[in-house]
Amino acid sequence: MESIPNVLADRYASGPMKKIWSPSGRIVLEREFWIAVLKAQADLGLSVPAGAVEAYEAVRDQVNLEAIKKREKITRHDVKARLEEFCDLAGHQQLHKGLTSRDLTENVEQLQVYRSLELVRGKVAAALIALSRKAVETQELPITARTHNVAAQLTTFGKRLTMFGEDLLLAFNRLDSLMKGYPVRGLKGAVGTQTDQLRLFDGDTDKAAALDQAVGKHLGLPAAFDCVGQVYPRSLDFDVVSALYQLACGPASLAKTLRLMAGHELASEGFAPGQTGSSAMPHKMNSRSCERINGFHHILRGHVTMASELGGDQWNEGDVSCSVVRRVVLPDAFFALDGLLETFLTVLRQMEVYPEMTAKENAHYLPFLSTTAVLMEAVKAGVGREEAHEVIKEHALATARDLKAGKISRNDLAERLGADSRLKLGEDKIKAIIDKAKEETGSAVKQVGRFAEKVVPIAELFRTAVEYIPEDIL
Amino acid sequence: MESIPNVLADRYASGPMKKIWSPSGRIVLEREFWIAVLKAQADLGLSVPAGAVEAYEAVRDQVNLEAIKKREKITRHDVKARLEEFCDLAGHQQLHKGLTSRDLTENVEQLQVYRSLELVRGKVAAALIALSRKAVETQELPITARTHNVAAQLTTFGKRLTMFGEDLLLAFNRLDSLMKGYPVRGLKGAVGTQTDQLRLFDGDTDKAAALDQAVGKHLGLPAAFDCVGQVYPRSLDFDVVSALYQLACGPASLAKTLRLMAGHELASEGFAPGQTGSSAMPHKMNSRSCERINGFHHILRGHVTMASELGGDQWNEGDVSCSVVRRVVLPDAFFALDGLLETFLTVLRQMEVYPEMTAKENAHYLPFLSTTAVLMEAVKAGVGREEAHEVIKEHALATARDLKAGKISRNDLAERLGADSRLKLGEDKIKAIIDKAKEETGSAVKQVGRFAEKVVPIAELFRTAVEYIPEDIL
Amino acid sequence: MESIPNVLADRYASGPMKKIWSPSGRIVLEREFWIAVLKAQADLGLSVPAGAVEAYEAVRDQVNLEAIKKREKITRHDVKARLEEFCDLAGHQQLHKGLTSRDLTENVEQLQVYRSLELVRGKVAAALIALSRKAVETQELPITARTHNVAAQLTTFGKRLTMFGEDLLLAFNRLDSLMKGYPVRGLKGAVGTQTDQLRLFDGDTDKAAALDQAVGKHLGLPAAFDCVGQVYPRSLDFDVVSALYQLACGPASLAKTLRLMAGHELASEGFAPGQTGSSAMPHKMNSRSCERINGFHHILRGHVTMASELGGDQWNEGDVSCSVVRRVVLPDAFFALDGLLETFLTVLRQMEVYPEMTAKENAHYLPFLSTTAVLMEAVKAGVGREEAHEVIKEHALATARDLKAGKISRNDLAERLGADSRLKLGEDKIKAIIDKAKEETGSAVKQVGRFAEKVVPIAELFRTAVEYIPEDIL
Amino acid sequence: MESIPNVLADRYASGPMKKIWSPSGRIVLEREFWIAVLKAQADLGLSVPAGAVEAYEAVRDQVNLEAIKKREKITRHDVKARLEEFCDLAGHQQLHKGLTSRDLTENVEQLQVYRSLELVRGKVAAALIALSRKAVETQELPITARTHNVAAQLTTFGKRLTMFGEDLLLAFNRLDSLMKGYPVRGLKGAVGTQTDQLRLFDGDTDKAAALDQAVGKHLGLPAAFDCVGQVYPRSLDFDVVSALYQLACGPASLAKTLRLMAGHELASEGFAPGQTGSSAMPHKMNSRSCERINGFHHILRGHVTMASELGGDQWNEGDVSCSVVRRVVLPDAFFALDGLLETFLTVLRQMEVYPEMTAKENAHYLPFLSTTAVLMEAVKAGVGREEAHEVIKEHALATARDLKAGKISRNDLAERLGADSRLKLGEDKIKAIIDKAKEETGSAVKQVGRFAEKVVPIAELFRTAVEYIPEDIL
Repeated sequence: MESIPNVLADRYASGPMKKIWSPSGRIVLEREFWIAVLKAQADLGLSVPAGAVEAYEAVRDQVNLEAIKKREKITRHDVKARLEEFCDLAGHQQLHKGLTSRDLTENVEQLQVYRSLELVRGKVAAALIALSRKAVETQELPITARTHNVAAQLTTFGKRLTMFGEDLLLAFNRLDSLMKGYPVRGLKGAVGTQTDQLRLFDGDTDKAAALDQAVGKHLGLPAAFDCVGQVYPRSLDFDVVSALYQLACGPASLAKTLRLMAGHELASEGFAPGQTGSSAMPHKMNSRSCERINGFHHILRGHVTMASELGGDQWNEGDVSCSVVRRVVLPDAFFALDGLLETFLTVLRQMEVYPEMTAKENAHYLPFLSTTAVLMEAVKAGVGREEAHEVIKEHALATARDLKAGKISRNDLAERLGADSRLKLGEDKIKAIIDKAKEETGSAVKQVGRFAEKVVPIAELFRTAVEYIPEDIL
Repeated sequence: MESIPNVLADRYASGPMKKIWSPSGRIVLEREFWIAVLKAQADLGLSVPAGAVEAYEAVRDQVNLEAIKKREKITRHDVKARLEEFCDLAGHQQLHKGLTSRDLTENVEQLQVYRSLELVRGKVAAALIALSRKAVETQELPITARTHNVAAQLTTFGKRLTMFGEDLLLAFNRLDSLMKGYPVRGLKGAVGTQTDQLRLFDGDTDKAAALDQAVGKHLGLPAAFDCVGQVYPRSLDFDVVSALYQLACGPASLAKTLRLMAGHELASEGFAPGQTGSSAMPHKMNSRSCERINGFHHILRGHVTMASELGGDQWNEGDVSCSVVRRVVLPDAFFALDGLLETFLTVLRQMEVYPEMTAKENAHYLPFLSTTAVLMEAVKAGVGREEAHEVIKEHALATARDLKAGKISRNDLAERLGADSRLKLGEDKIKAIIDKAKEETGSAVKQVGRFAEKVVPIAELFRTAVEYIPEDIL
Repeated sequence: MESIPNVLADRYASGPMKKIWSPSGRIVLEREFWIAVLKAQADLGLSVPAGAVEAYEAVRDQVNLEAIKKREKITRHDVKARLEEFCDLAGHQQLHKGLTSRDLTENVEQLQVYRSLELVRGKVAAALIALSRKAVETQELPITARTHNVAAQLTTFGKRLTMFGEDLLLAFNRLDSLMKGYPVRGLKGAVGTQTDQLRLFDGDTDKAAALDQAVGKHLGLPAAFDCVGQVYPRSLDFDVVSALYQLACGPASLAKTLRLMAGHELASEGFAPGQTGSSAMPHKMNSRSCERINGFHHILRGHVTMASELGGDQWNEGDVSCSVVRRVVLPDAFFALDGLLETFLTVLRQMEVYPEMTAKENAHYLPFLSTTAVLMEAVKAGVGREEAHEVIKEHALATARDLKAGKISRNDLAERLGADSRLKLGEDKIKAIIDKAKEETGSAVKQVGRFAEKVVPIAELFRTAVEYIPEDIL
Repeated sequence: MESIPNVLADRYASGPMKKIWSPSGRIVLEREFWIAVLKAQADLGLSVPAGAVEAYEAVRDQVNLEAIKKREKITRHDVKARLEEFCDLAGHQQLHKGLTSRDLTENVEQLQVYRSLELVRGKVAAALIALSRKAVETQELPITARTHNVAAQLTTFGKRLTMFGEDLLLAFNRLDSLMKGYPVRGLKGAVGTQTDQLRLFDGDTDKAAALDQAVGKHLGLPAAFDCVGQVYPRSLDFDVVSALYQLACGPASLAKTLRLMAGHELASEGFAPGQTGSSAMPHKMNSRSCERINGFHHILRGHVTMASELGGDQWNEGDVSCSVVRRVVLPDAFFALDGLLETFLTVLRQMEVYPEMTAKENAHYLPFLSTTAVLMEAVKAGVGREEAHEVIKEHALATARDLKAGKISRNDLAERLGADSRLKLGEDKIKAIIDKAKEETGSAVKQVGRFAEKVVPIAELFRTAVEYIPEDIL
């Protein structure tokens, strides 16, 4: 029967991420692990027949997924099936001594997780660098900031980008801290007490410890658990998946904002040569990459729920009710975030902003954008703050209503405010305030600078990220 | 690069479910849809060159996924890619007239959903029938009912099963009601107004309506939307996925209870010949199928969250931020539930209960199980209800503590209660009450009968379900 | 210490909904239930001292929450605390005979759920009626439909509303079907076998059945479970909460779309006299009610997850791990939806659309909105569909780019298309097509009519809903 | 109308946690913040009338919630309502100059969050200390470890506890790292550019910076954002709530395991004097506190979903669609975790383990628990690992079946294995292996020691946690 591909891997994830989670890739990781254990056991004095290690190494890459599946149908035990296949290929039964299945699978899966985290970290660094670059380029371009989706005050396009950059940076720091303390389960045996390792070495605790260390060295993870059962605490998987989700938030907010700006023709995610926007409406240039980013973000919310199911549900020393969940959520969450990051990096490279259009919008809203400035000056002129607020509101709302109703075609708020003696300012002063407001983007440029400074050390640490180019996206 | 299979499809879902969601299967569904539209357009008088329909039909099954993917890399539009491929194969450009992409994809995906629902309904019927059968077989086997995981009163094994059957039946009825009203989007055009259909027929509303009806007939779904945008309301997808989740709940509770019973050696899910429980501990007979059912149930919780993201997020007439989410959650939720049902049906066929062990447990707890009976008789004898409760509690707790501390080895609660004059019953009467309680399973048998009666009409409606045998599970 | 109010109840829910879930309201419901059981037991021949029923009835409404809390601190059992309080007030110990706590609490909570569902159903009916009314009023007002947030084709404002109405209608029908089959647990005893009821009546199954029926009659719910444990299947709670969530989706999409339209000054949710948009920016008219609707919708997503935790987690005959979850999620989900519906009804009453602004937008986009019409005519003129699509796309994208870059100030797409001989149409014909497109809203009006027809029987069934006026919202 | 209390606060949360989130407590925090800003503005040279600061300070604690609510009904703006109330009380209009609402609310809410995190951290420290103490006390008590809920090998009770302790420790470290980098929004103005602050000081950036710093000092949080919009990135709230969830996982697994052990009468959560287990069955001693812990854990899963809705959904510079969500999820998640921790600390103090019962269970399973030891010795004796596994499995399964079927009453696995020549061991050797296995708890004691060592520095840092006694729980 035709195989059903994993759609997240097939359509969206990058080559390196797929490699980590490919079925045969995983089997090779397991075989390397078994061989590492065997070698360490031999070094520690366990009798291993001459040629056995070499025999296993010789067939390490001979992965036949179908054959393994057939074996599993009989044993109903996936590790047993993979063990028998490897042993039969090598013609030896020397592996897995003193091990339970989880001594193998927990460690290999943690290796997959950690390598994926490394891949993600590099891409997030690349995204921060690209975003910072774009923000600096556009730090002085004034745009109409919106709150509640309504024109509020001026900001700059670069500053707008850094809000989302700051979001991503926060998540990056969490990822970093997670990775620094990520603990591996190690060789702890069937119920976590290392009983079988100790039996193997006739109770020699030094040798059992040495074996555990040798395994740790083979894996290369930064920390290790002391006290586990058959499984490590599944809340660690939740920690990972929720960190991935957090990394999706900044890009998702940026994507959503770009979709809004595209609706006002102020900016767009770019449009590739040959691209089709709509099969029906030839004029369409859709924010489909940004929409896809929002889609990945929603998927990851589901993964957070799935991963949350793993934590706090350990019965005694553990079981496999988590097994199928982890088979799905661990690779899929990485595929989804990887697809999101590839898409996001593409958007960061291709996005466009249209200065003529942003200037037009700014001009349209300027009298409104200046109401806080007027408010402030009125207060300085001795009007009570809440009273001034009321007066300005009265005129601003009336102007807005008249514009919407087509009663006036030009924003005449300045005149209205000038004519109201309660404000104690007069038309000239108000027009001057509004005129000055045209350039008032406050600390925006300075803030972009501070953001860029925070990205500098990341660019130094992740050299390859600086020039990372995303794969072509569908 | 090696393809990454969808793990839910690859390891757990049944053949028929995989067929519905396979990439090439979907493309054939789309082509059938396009041809049906073309034929209907020709019937309604649109000019279609001679031989065009036949040319499309001739190449309908020539599906080359790689070629389509290549096209999509250029157009960045999946439907456009599939359309061009099909047209080039046939040597015509006659399809998709007056259609937008969603006129195709919405309808085809709804067809996939509906066929999957039919498949699921049949399996749930099979599960209800199998469960009812098993419950009737064991309706008189007394077991110790537990609340708070502590021995409470007697029930029967069959009655215990029907609690979970009733849960599943509730979900079955919800599924049935969902299916009966499941509305298809139909041909509504780019923004839902059918403008392009009307243009195609020079404003002839009768012809546009006739075309929409012809399409509806081709699809065969039970109802239709009137007012949609480019997309149908995504809350319908949530409706589907949450119904699937609900179907998982009864089996999940049964599985969890069977895992608990296995821990007490009272019952098990069965153990296939050749099966291995643990690669380290040869004696293990694990409830791995039940654990897997609980795993699927947890996955579906994640799918519910994912699907909930689809509802209530429509901007104007719609966009594709839902696209990648639906690509993942629709097939995966069906695969997960299908895998769960296949596993559940296997458990229902292979499960075992051990009457010698349940009898032993009943005997052990009998004096405790009888405390409500004693309470009731004491009340009848004139003791205040709350006072009698207090007296019995005092002795029962003391007995339990002494047993746990090893101070006594036999449950002597009867003697203790008999010796306490506050209860006004005396040892003989109390022993008689306890002895009688040995068989008091209340309405259990009658309740099983009522459940079985409710399953009868289902068995009549779903004839093939009666003898459905699940596929071999991994 | 100052009590912390439930913020959903305190700020947003309506009076009638709060009444159902108030602490003392619930206690009265319980006492009524206990008295109903006592009366039925007396009627069936159980000895009840003269005056006992009257004594209980006399103190039924004397609810002292503090006194009950003090009792619970000792018993650590909430029902026991409430039972003792009621009995001490009445000076009798006649209640709760043959009952376990769940015989009381399950049924009373189901009553609260069902009455809340009735309240919700009435408000949803009111919302459908109000929406239908508004849609009919505005069914002919042409607006620019958007897909991907980009101008696509014309539709009408009324038609846009009905998309969300159809969404809500779907959910309404699901609610209705849920309510029709909502089964009550009834008097089933400590482990679901009715053992204690049977003991009470010396094994007389008729009397036990009669008691259960009497209770069912008191509660008045439409259906009943046969086979339960100590608890009814918790998937029923999920069914309820997911139905509530689904009801939130249509309003949430409408609210989001209104927020988008407000950003373009095309429509607004209205603005009450005295209202303040921003404490800093006096000109702001924010879509705060619509934003709040989206907030409630997000909260309900969390409630769906919470409720999903209840299903599929029954150990044996049940326990109270669900207790605290249900204490939170059942009232809170109803409060959230109730708050959403009150807000939504307010928005439906106060929303405004600005025809001058929508006309302006339509004019601006008209040449683009007409590209499908041009495409169709080109096909009729003998151009291949995919070729025509390519030609139009080329010119449309160029025009859009020139507009955004400020190179042109008027949309000259018609001229460009007319000058391209590949389209075989010529400028005059193209201008005619575009001019005609100005009024082409397809089946929009007809579709609004069909929606309105579907609401008519609801308005007939829910008479009070027709004129329902929401409470003042914060 | 009767107020509906927040059930999580009312029944479960501790006094100090309720204090942080009480409505009037929050208003006082806001007023303190406003006064701090006013003072700093005066210090930086803004004109503030003599006596204004004192006037505000004098009425700071006069909180009238009803009066504020009335104002909000008119303004439909909660901050405006609270501002007007405070100003009217003081008889001045000097507050909120240059501020937008979010300059107030964001910072005050972050203060509430941070203080709650401090409270939580202290309690988790207390839990780690209590758990470590209990684990050391019971580190040598052998119990039957279970995987898949089936007897597997020996471990010790103390070691079992540390598995869950390690889980909690992981979450504690995450919490710690989150708190160390928790950034406050500060005074950034209506769209994040500080425009109004700058206007207030006539463009003097030094003064604006000095004001922001003064505010930061008043709040006392460890870090600060540079680039925000009107709101800080909501993914930070998700970070907080997901950290809270993670803290719930270790306790939830421990609680679940204790519920399982109670079912086997091996341990219990303890039972308070006067407590009632069941209103129907006086003998019941239920794990109701552990069940409640699992309930809180489930609630927090819903909160994780709710909080995940906050991230990645920022439109432009922000809006209030997050407002109602944060009003619910921030306090409620803290209340739920606080209730969980109070309950968990109670369980850790009162839990009991029954050595007579665990010894009995160990004896019953010993021959099975020893199968890995036999397997290992057989391998040493030259039997192939997979062959030996098969032989042992054959006999172990047969023995288990015979026991369950009542065919034998004593576990005779030793004799069966001894009689099978394929194993090359003989009955004497096998009996010796099994006898030795009685004490083989591997590295359990050593592992407990390592866990205790990791808790030592926490106990030194959190001195008050060492003797923390939870409040009485319901």
